[in-house]
Amino acid sequence: MDPQFVRFDNVTAFTLAEGVEGRPLFGDRAMLNLIDFSAGATVPAHSHPHEQIGIVLRGMQALVIDGVSHELGPMEGYVLPGNVEHSAYCGPEGATVIDVFSPVREDYRERCEGSGSTGE
Amino acid sequence: MDPQFVRFDNVTAFTLAEGVEGRPLFGDRAMLNLIDFSAGATVPAHSHPHEQIGIVLRGMQALVIDGVSHELGPMEGYVLPGNVEHSAYCGPEGATVIDVFSPVREDYRERCEGSGSTGE
Repeated sequence: MDPQFVRFDNVTAFTLAEGVEGRPLFGDRAMLNLIDFSAGATVPAHSHPHEQIGIVLRGMQALVIDGVSHELGPMEGYVLPGNVEHSAYCGPEGATVIDVFSPVREDYRERCEGSGSTGE
Repeated sequence: MDPQFVRFDNVTAFTLAEGVEGRPLFGDRAMLNLIDFSAGATVPAHSHPHEQIGIVLRGMQALVIDGVSHELGPMEGYVLPGNVEHSAYCGPEGATVIDVFSPVREDYRERCEGSGSTGE
């Protein structure tokens, strides 16, 4: 892979859940996903074997794990090991967050290739 | 590893280069580093086998690869494969950027453990 440079505004968004859109940047070993939650949007409980690391840039995103809500504001972050079931919700103003996955979410890549998302 | 939650303000910063400080969040497979460049700070040319993915949050960060400067503003990102030599500089207002590495930069972990950085 050659170095890649992207402007996220030019990356085609894909829908993660109703009102939750992601703009991905894929490496070989890891990927970054710039996510925008519309006001009040939620992500249903799910799990995946991929490690997930995140940081909130704007608004509030809560991760719910084992029935406990972890509400995160700007410049708060988390690490979720693989296979930990989690759901998410955001505050009334929505949220902008970055998720990092390792390994790459090939399910995301397939959805993005289907939609023609390639960056700049 | 259990899920981790951190407030980056509470993470002890370590010095990457003069005027360049990082606040790391370590997973098992990947890590995130929240980096603050002081005005005019630079990172000398270096390379590492780790894949690096980044996004600029504030200001301008330039990556110099093979003598070519790639100037990145807010919400612009990049992927650098491992072993690609690069240096960096920022604009007069400094910059805030997120770097992601996979695998984990164990050299960073050792420096942080030495300084007692553990998150919240």
